[in-house]
Amino acid sequence: MSTGNLQPTPDDRFTFGLWTVGWQARDPFGDPTRPALDPVEAVHRLADLGAYGVTFHDDDLIPFGSDAAVRRQHIDRFRSALDETGLVVPMMTTNLFTHPVFKEGALTANDRSVRRYAMRKVLHNLDLAAELGARTYVFWGGREGAEVDVAKDLPSALDRYREALDTLAQYVVDQGYGIRFAVEPKPNEPRGDIFLPTVGHALAFISTLEHADMVGVNPEVGHEQMSNLNFVHGIAQALWQGKLFHIDLNGQHGPKFDQDLVFGHGDLISAFGLVDLLENGGISGASPYDGPRHFDYKPLRTEDADGVWVSAAANMRTYLLLKERAHAFRADPEVQEALAMAGAGDLATPTLGSGESYQELLADSSAFEDFDAEARAVRGEGVVRIDQLMVEHLTGAR
Amino acid sequence: MSTGNLQPTPDDRFTFGLWTVGWQARDPFGDPTRPALDPVEAVHRLADLGAYGVTFHDDDLIPFGSDAAVRRQHIDRFRSALDETGLVVPMMTTNLFTHPVFKEGALTANDRSVRRYAMRKVLHNLDLAAELGARTYVFWGGREGAEVDVAKDLPSALDRYREALDTLAQYVVDQGYGIRFAVEPKPNEPRGDIFLPTVGHALAFISTLEHADMVGVNPEVGHEQMSNLNFVHGIAQALWQGKLFHIDLNGQHGPKFDQDLVFGHGDLISAFGLVDLLENGGISGASPYDGPRHFDYKPLRTEDADGVWVSAAANMRTYLLLKERAHAFRADPEVQEALAMAGAGDLATPTLGSGESYQELLADSSAFEDFDAEARAVRGEGVVRIDQLMVEHLTGAR
Amino acid sequence: MSTGNLQPTPDDRFTFGLWTVGWQARDPFGDPTRPALDPVEAVHRLADLGAYGVTFHDDDLIPFGSDAAVRRQHIDRFRSALDETGLVVPMMTTNLFTHPVFKEGALTANDRSVRRYAMRKVLHNLDLAAELGARTYVFWGGREGAEVDVAKDLPSALDRYREALDTLAQYVVDQGYGIRFAVEPKPNEPRGDIFLPTVGHALAFISTLEHADMVGVNPEVGHEQMSNLNFVHGIAQALWQGKLFHIDLNGQHGPKFDQDLVFGHGDLISAFGLVDLLENGGISGASPYDGPRHFDYKPLRTEDADGVWVSAAANMRTYLLLKERAHAFRADPEVQEALAMAGAGDLATPTLGSGESYQELLADSSAFEDFDAEARAVRGEGVVRIDQLMVEHLTGAR
Amino acid sequence: MSTGNLQPTPDDRFTFGLWTVGWQARDPFGDPTRPALDPVEAVHRLADLGAYGVTFHDDDLIPFGSDAAVRRQHIDRFRSALDETGLVVPMMTTNLFTHPVFKEGALTANDRSVRRYAMRKVLHNLDLAAELGARTYVFWGGREGAEVDVAKDLPSALDRYREALDTLAQYVVDQGYGIRFAVEPKPNEPRGDIFLPTVGHALAFISTLEHADMVGVNPEVGHEQMSNLNFVHGIAQALWQGKLFHIDLNGQHGPKFDQDLVFGHGDLISAFGLVDLLENGGISGASPYDGPRHFDYKPLRTEDADGVWVSAAANMRTYLLLKERAHAFRADPEVQEALAMAGAGDLATPTLGSGESYQELLADSSAFEDFDAEARAVRGEGVVRIDQLMVEHLTGAR
Repeated sequence: MSTGNLQPTPDDRFTFGLWTVGWQARDPFGDPTRPALDPVEAVHRLADLGAYGVTFHDDDLIPFGSDAAVRRQHIDRFRSALDETGLVVPMMTTNLFTHPVFKEGALTANDRSVRRYAMRKVLHNLDLAAELGARTYVFWGGREGAEVDVAKDLPSALDRYREALDTLAQYVVDQGYGIRFAVEPKPNEPRGDIFLPTVGHALAFISTLEHADMVGVNPEVGHEQMSNLNFVHGIAQALWQGKLFHIDLNGQHGPKFDQDLVFGHGDLISAFGLVDLLENGGISGASPYDGPRHFDYKPLRTEDADGVWVSAAANMRTYLLLKERAHAFRADPEVQEALAMAGAGDLATPTLGSGESYQELLADSSAFEDFDAEARAVRGEGVVRIDQLMVEHLTGAR
Repeated sequence: MSTGNLQPTPDDRFTFGLWTVGWQARDPFGDPTRPALDPVEAVHRLADLGAYGVTFHDDDLIPFGSDAAVRRQHIDRFRSALDETGLVVPMMTTNLFTHPVFKEGALTANDRSVRRYAMRKVLHNLDLAAELGARTYVFWGGREGAEVDVAKDLPSALDRYREALDTLAQYVVDQGYGIRFAVEPKPNEPRGDIFLPTVGHALAFISTLEHADMVGVNPEVGHEQMSNLNFVHGIAQALWQGKLFHIDLNGQHGPKFDQDLVFGHGDLISAFGLVDLLENGGISGASPYDGPRHFDYKPLRTEDADGVWVSAAANMRTYLLLKERAHAFRADPEVQEALAMAGAGDLATPTLGSGESYQELLADSSAFEDFDAEARAVRGEGVVRIDQLMVEHLTGAR
Repeated sequence: MSTGNLQPTPDDRFTFGLWTVGWQARDPFGDPTRPALDPVEAVHRLADLGAYGVTFHDDDLIPFGSDAAVRRQHIDRFRSALDETGLVVPMMTTNLFTHPVFKEGALTANDRSVRRYAMRKVLHNLDLAAELGARTYVFWGGREGAEVDVAKDLPSALDRYREALDTLAQYVVDQGYGIRFAVEPKPNEPRGDIFLPTVGHALAFISTLEHADMVGVNPEVGHEQMSNLNFVHGIAQALWQGKLFHIDLNGQHGPKFDQDLVFGHGDLISAFGLVDLLENGGISGASPYDGPRHFDYKPLRTEDADGVWVSAAANMRTYLLLKERAHAFRADPEVQEALAMAGAGDLATPTLGSGESYQELLADSSAFEDFDAEARAVRGEGVVRIDQLMVEHLTGAR
Repeated sequence: MSTGNLQPTPDDRFTFGLWTVGWQARDPFGDPTRPALDPVEAVHRLADLGAYGVTFHDDDLIPFGSDAAVRRQHIDRFRSALDETGLVVPMMTTNLFTHPVFKEGALTANDRSVRRYAMRKVLHNLDLAAELGARTYVFWGGREGAEVDVAKDLPSALDRYREALDTLAQYVVDQGYGIRFAVEPKPNEPRGDIFLPTVGHALAFISTLEHADMVGVNPEVGHEQMSNLNFVHGIAQALWQGKLFHIDLNGQHGPKFDQDLVFGHGDLISAFGLVDLLENGGISGASPYDGPRHFDYKPLRTEDADGVWVSAAANMRTYLLLKERAHAFRADPEVQEALAMAGAGDLATPTLGSGESYQELLADSSAFEDFDAEARAVRGEGVVRIDQLMVEHLTGAR
């Protein structure tokens, strides 16, 4: 296996949150190890590295509590940097978690005045999102949760969450902003339990919304792996439901605190499966993902500014490397033969024949009365062979 | 705290799977420690203990591969036992996992002949479910999953799962069986990853079904806790979506193999929160659960037949004990005051006023421009006090 | 079950870290919600609540970088508060994790100058520990770890860890301080992986030390449960090895970020088993724990100062409640009979008879050749009955 | 990166348990999918694939309860196969878990007659181990554990475990068998909690044994990862303590049931770090591992006999592939430079200078009083660069 060009370009549509390269590395047990990063510098450095866009929470760009004039200054400086570099802002989001006013929740806080404030904070930032041309607006409810089950009215929390998203969606519709919402699930941290803990819970919640059609999910690798769930399966379901509006790529080593490692620096085989699905779609042709490849990671606390940019580049480089490996895997005739032997493609054939009714299935004695379960059971499925072919492609051994 | 009557009666609607008390205690590393249990004896013993009903997989009652005559004999004997004891069969389900023919999947197997066979096996047993008066039919897809992401066509698997449930639901509708389906999520075991791993993923999938209205979930305590997800939160969402059609009660000690402990013998505080929600509903009046309280547990492998019945009784006794404690908790004026102090009830009040539009919210400067976030942030929420009151009620100290 | 007096007194030997009640509730995603707490106030409040002692890291009392005069002022004020209240300082420890200089490690940092600085910081604080009469000095190596296995010389890290503890122990011996060391294991957070991740790894490491006799462990409930390990089993092994020098009591909901909940507000059944073991020792008389009952928890971020003290009191109250329940459990004749039926006490009898050699065992045909494994296998062990009796004692139902 | 010869030979010292390729794929929810495999066939097939040796539990070769004549027949047939193929038996072990007589424990069962029987079963098989030339005897206490903390006398359980190992070790010494013991830790499954759950707990227990010098550990990749512990760190500690007597290689996807996947088919980055450590030792020269590379895995239940041998080969091939990648990683000048920049090698330098006392450290003001922590803190450690270089070597991109 030779390795081709791993230099990213804007065509790769790689995007980064300002809060990622800008993370000062303060953690629950330690003070910051890096100085603040000017968003304008972040834009330039990301552009130099080949990124396509940048994303942010309101407070990443405009300090909490800034007045209108200061706010405008920050926006204008930032906009100039975008113009100079060609970077776009495909996604924006709201910080509803840092300030202590949100300690008990934001859109689902018990206190109605906090909920109203939170909703206004979103509305305010939606206008900016529209101004900057963002197409996706993410909702990560980091404080929407609880530590004590019996101390929170759980059904009402979901009522309020729905009310908020319905109201905000109506606003976007009325303003003609053309923005879609993406709910980002996470099981815990900072709250003991966060509402909508997985891709599944978020998709289920979305199905109850008034504007369900304009709301999808923004799954994050590490968030799902914090529950030891299979991220690739979750993404497959989100794609299958037409709801993968955005994605957060990073790395995690299983159920522990949220690590936000560089993409691929956690579970590498899962990362391969993910890139394969995002880039190549289903084995029988289900559509791949067509949105931005967004990195939501944190440079290790051990790193200085140089390490920050090394890590930013590593995300993109690893993605491109896995993309190349995944293409080769799909194109390998031996893989195709192994998949065929395993019947992987047959799953696309409906179980009922074309036009067949269940009455006909009931009348088909070959399906049941005459079906030889014992005989069928002895056939091997050849899955381990595919697994090994995958590992060899991933490791560049084929 | 005094403890009242913990003797179960059919009014408590406790039900057990035949496979629970009948488990012979074969595990991945050990041979059975108990002889087979005659389903007729199970019915009588459960009735003696105060149960309301019994549930089963087809193969629990009728050995796999029995011919029609043998099948009828088993059914008739069982029915007589039901008649003698008054036990009902509120739920039935299909075994699509024990026989090796299902090793690669059943309703989502790559091999279409296996899928057809699986569908026929369900159809066959649905007729029996109707005959025995079951109102709920459970789908646990124990073999619907994969170990190797890139070896399975994940979107097609969901297509086939949907096709199966749509077809089977149509059959039930056409036959006028009045049966509802309940999908049972589980993250893994026996497959490396099972499709529809959590309550959320199952609810999301259901929203895509043709007969979504007649399909809900059958969550199991341990299955959700195997992913360290908060089971009470999951149940709250299922109830909130009107989809808690059935429930499997047991115990589990976090992310490890599926333990199926006696209810309450795992995470006791979560069990308290669960019984409180099922029995008392939301703090502001959201409806409680009104279906059977079904135990899906396994008597420890160390136990003999006596231990089996001790463990069966323990499930019901613990449930009743927690129910009593939960009623006292809700009725305690100090709890009510603490909940009021925490504003728990205020969450039921919509964030927008009655008839208020978002335009009016935008115009309300008290909500944003004049809102004093710093001042609001200093107020304590009093959650830990409620937590401690709960622990003291749970431990009978109040 | 009636509940007796749950009011703590110094005889109960409850102690708290200054950093617990003093936590300002800054988390990875949020700013502090509470103002700084004066250590002097902490001492007075804890004394009022019935605590026995207080513990601290150097930097909890004396801000990092203080000169000698300022240092002395802080110590003197604190000492006066101790004198006024009668609180003692049974344990002290070093902060080797907050300052960014320790970002890559402290006693095991790659950089030798950092290791020397860390060792000096410990030596400096050991003098204060001796001055304040502390008997135990805790080593929690929060930054001793790594995120990237191949980037760290793991064997050398253990060499340096051992060198540090050997050197520091020699200092304590030479000074005649009479202080014992207690290593506190934790699997991760803030580092991706921390060296000595569990009670077992720490005990194993200790066995290699020059002064192994004066080094034990300081296990924390939540740290072990972050790996879903059984904390009671770990404590039993530490006690059995004579190495339970100190203990950190709190609560945790399984593998996720370090929650530091109030003791008993996590896994309640495990907390019961723990208190039973600490207070009552082994079933056949193995010694209980005789050190301080130290709470290392964090008041929820939702709480204000009042909630802080409610939570501090809740720790002690819950401990006393479980202690009462555990005494009643052990004293219950039905429990004793159930334990006897299960043969729990027989495990204290050696497998070989008194003076029996393995030659005699080999010659005893009743042990093997004539042993009827099938017959023995059918006997039930009655474990579930004890489990249920425990749940009923814990819930005050007996 | 080119890939060299991945064909295993006996010089690679790859070994397999009879129970691995012979697993019939019975799981907790399913019947066997494969017929029994004759151990003689296993020996021939493994030899054909390039393995070095084979290992087994007594009952893998000789059915439980066989009389002496039948036993001898099985041994003789097996021995002939070894002679024909040249395969050796470097390790043997006892099955103390399958038969229901061990349901409550074996060497730590409450029932003394069971403990005596278990000890005799080991003694019997130790003679065979000596006869076949095994150098290592493994103790995996699959049934040594509990589900209910308060129902088991935990300190006595450790007393009995120690008594058993001390007695058995004395026997080996007296017989001059030259066999070493290796304790295999596992946190749970089949018991709710198993004693000696991690590498650390086992090492700690071993330090208390009479013949501690002849007892080490046999860590298994998946067992440690079932607790989400870092396996490479655990192996490093075992090596550092001179106690890595044997190793079980396989794959696992985090905290769930024991998957026993093909080596490398779980966490691939951890597998790389493991092979790097086993083959290349510490960065500064700490010794690598010199024992057999033993695969303790299970061919997926989906596979037939062909798949079994494909999977057996995949274990060895992946190991060799990672070994090649790890050698290239260590040899890469850019990696060496990055490790040097990170100071990875400096950790081998003692913190105290040669002959330096702590008094001299205390007198060195550059170490503390004049140390500029702020200045030191700003330096980056360059860890992420090494991480990325590792990923690129692993994926064959360098």
